[in-house]
Amino acid sequence: MKFQLTATDPKSSARAGVLQTDHGEIQTPIFMPVGTAGSVKAVHQRELELDIQAQIILGNTYHLYLRPGLGILEKAGGLHKFNGWSRPILTDSGGYQVYSLAANRKIVDEGVTFKSHIDGSKHHFTPENVMDIQRTIGADIIMAFDECTPYPCEYAYAKSSMQLTHQWLKRCVDRIQSTEPKYGYEQALFPIVQGSVYKDLREQSAGFIASQNQQGNAIGGLSVGEPHEDMYAMTSLVCSILPKEKPRYLMGVGTPENILECIALGIDMFDCVMPTRNARNGMLFTTEGIINIRNEKWKDDLSPIDAALGGYVSTFHSKAYLRHLIINKEILGAQIASIHNLTFYLWLVKEARKQIEAGTFAAWKNKMVKTVSQRL
Amino acid sequence: MKFQLTATDPKSSARAGVLQTDHGEIQTPIFMPVGTAGSVKAVHQRELELDIQAQIILGNTYHLYLRPGLGILEKAGGLHKFNGWSRPILTDSGGYQVYSLAANRKIVDEGVTFKSHIDGSKHHFTPENVMDIQRTIGADIIMAFDECTPYPCEYAYAKSSMQLTHQWLKRCVDRIQSTEPKYGYEQALFPIVQGSVYKDLREQSAGFIASQNQQGNAIGGLSVGEPHEDMYAMTSLVCSILPKEKPRYLMGVGTPENILECIALGIDMFDCVMPTRNARNGMLFTTEGIINIRNEKWKDDLSPIDAALGGYVSTFHSKAYLRHLIINKEILGAQIASIHNLTFYLWLVKEARKQIEAGTFAAWKNKMVKTVSQRL
Repeated sequence: MKFQLTATDPKSSARAGVLQTDHGEIQTPIFMPVGTAGSVKAVHQRELELDIQAQIILGNTYHLYLRPGLGILEKAGGLHKFNGWSRPILTDSGGYQVYSLAANRKIVDEGVTFKSHIDGSKHHFTPENVMDIQRTIGADIIMAFDECTPYPCEYAYAKSSMQLTHQWLKRCVDRIQSTEPKYGYEQALFPIVQGSVYKDLREQSAGFIASQNQQGNAIGGLSVGEPHEDMYAMTSLVCSILPKEKPRYLMGVGTPENILECIALGIDMFDCVMPTRNARNGMLFTTEGIINIRNEKWKDDLSPIDAALGGYVSTFHSKAYLRHLIINKEILGAQIASIHNLTFYLWLVKEARKQIEAGTFAAWKNKMVKTVSQRL
Repeated sequence: MKFQLTATDPKSSARAGVLQTDHGEIQTPIFMPVGTAGSVKAVHQRELELDIQAQIILGNTYHLYLRPGLGILEKAGGLHKFNGWSRPILTDSGGYQVYSLAANRKIVDEGVTFKSHIDGSKHHFTPENVMDIQRTIGADIIMAFDECTPYPCEYAYAKSSMQLTHQWLKRCVDRIQSTEPKYGYEQALFPIVQGSVYKDLREQSAGFIASQNQQGNAIGGLSVGEPHEDMYAMTSLVCSILPKEKPRYLMGVGTPENILECIALGIDMFDCVMPTRNARNGMLFTTEGIINIRNEKWKDDLSPIDAALGGYVSTFHSKAYLRHLIINKEILGAQIASIHNLTFYLWLVKEARKQIEAGTFAAWKNKMVKTVSQRL
């Protein structure tokens, strides 16, 4: 895996780059659609590739481990073969789901014991087996096994949790170094910076993560309910410590505004369920602002969903038709809205990349943040 | 609208033909996917056209009248413009839904008063306004307003209901003849034969319907729970009376087996929600037989959904992947299964057409009925 910076913005910390993987090139900054259980919800792989032009997607280790399970994934030759997505895949480590399961999990130094949300069966994740699981899933990018702290989080808990995450990271690195890629292509490990919203912890964590000298680095534990100012302050601080020549991935972020602001702070990779989850509820992100398509005002609006965006569904279908589908709970409504929102997210990062290359990112970003966050 | 028979099978009553409409040609026998409220559930219009190769789809007058309503459909320039489907559309008359609403409707000579299933609001359908509504929806083929009797149905009720349907038909014909197409293209009326499972009523009804000399004829009130033998007997009887030179449409039918048997009896057009509804529950129709994809036996089966069928999803995705999606209630499961089943239905009628043209339909049909109705 190689990462090369191709341009930096003169008036912000924004960067453009190219990340090369054995499943193809990723042009950064990039947004990665979330394919929880091996499917980006309501979107075909063909649409992801041709319409949305996604360059990499996510899979969730927790979900894929439970279903379909490692046996069938291994038999298929990995997730790419199982779901028919031939470009890169990143898998999370299950840390976030473990955090979400609060009542049904127990964290000890060794790892985490948890109960399946599907059938209540008992499972055990350790740094070692989570590396093995991600190798078997077949991720191009494997995330370290961490604990994602909630917000708010007491300083003492944030500190001890961070220390646990660091101990676990050493075990992840050892495991990755002592095992081979499962299917012949490279599988790179990205460690995760934690430390909640505490500057000294984030500094300490970023320093430790940087010292591991892996092929990319991630920031976790943000976008969990903290004020945006805290998210930006922590991201900025961590980016100032993480090495410039490695890709930086801000996990679980966010709104179009969040993404633009964090690109300006030096982030290269993003993922979030927002474009697909909100699409299913009728919330559309467009080049002109945010639309709640369920609103009566779109009932008779026969103009395209987003004429400026281009792409198959956004110019082909009208707002009135999409509203009709969403109001009537037609599956096609979820499909069209999801494709549209993802097309918009991928357009946004591509446009940001162009602006970085042109040296005009900072001014464009300030204008664009206002446009994309206004409610229409 | 022109219908031309291009071939007849020597050993059955099967026919191949071409129905020309202002939105393009339909090669018969044909299956028409059901697009209830302006969307074939879980299927994009692009997939309908390119992958499934549908030639005509249905819209439901009852649903479209309630939502999105006639105002927006008229403003859009008809359903084709509203939903982006540029090939022919047939709309039912609302008669079937009115029958389904049993508790919430009242039938009198004038028409039907019913309560919306959405908000309980009161509405009135008459033969005249149902013709106007279908003109406004923009159907290429408009169905007469009829009463669809349930099964079983007392002889006396079946008779008086049939007489009412005939009276209503005269009013439909008058209305169609005294009004103009709404959007510049032809809108043809198809009358509907009723009479439950009573031979004398079906004979009488078929004779009356034939005498109206419209551009096509339909058979209603079958596939409502009666034994298949009754369905076939009534279809055969009615086909012997309806004019040969007009297309014959058997409403709401059916399984692949039903379709093949009724093609053999002289039917040209079919529609049914089965391929899409059953798809959403994991029931697949394939060239080798019927699959319940939820069954444990498909869990590790990495073979294509239906290699012999061809088409995008059926050869691209494995049974194991589709099972995983359906079990996990992923929307993509409904999408893939629906596209697959409709691709199969359209393949089946296309194959039947080839066999009719080759003069080999009857023998092929007997073999194929066994194959497509076996459970795998």
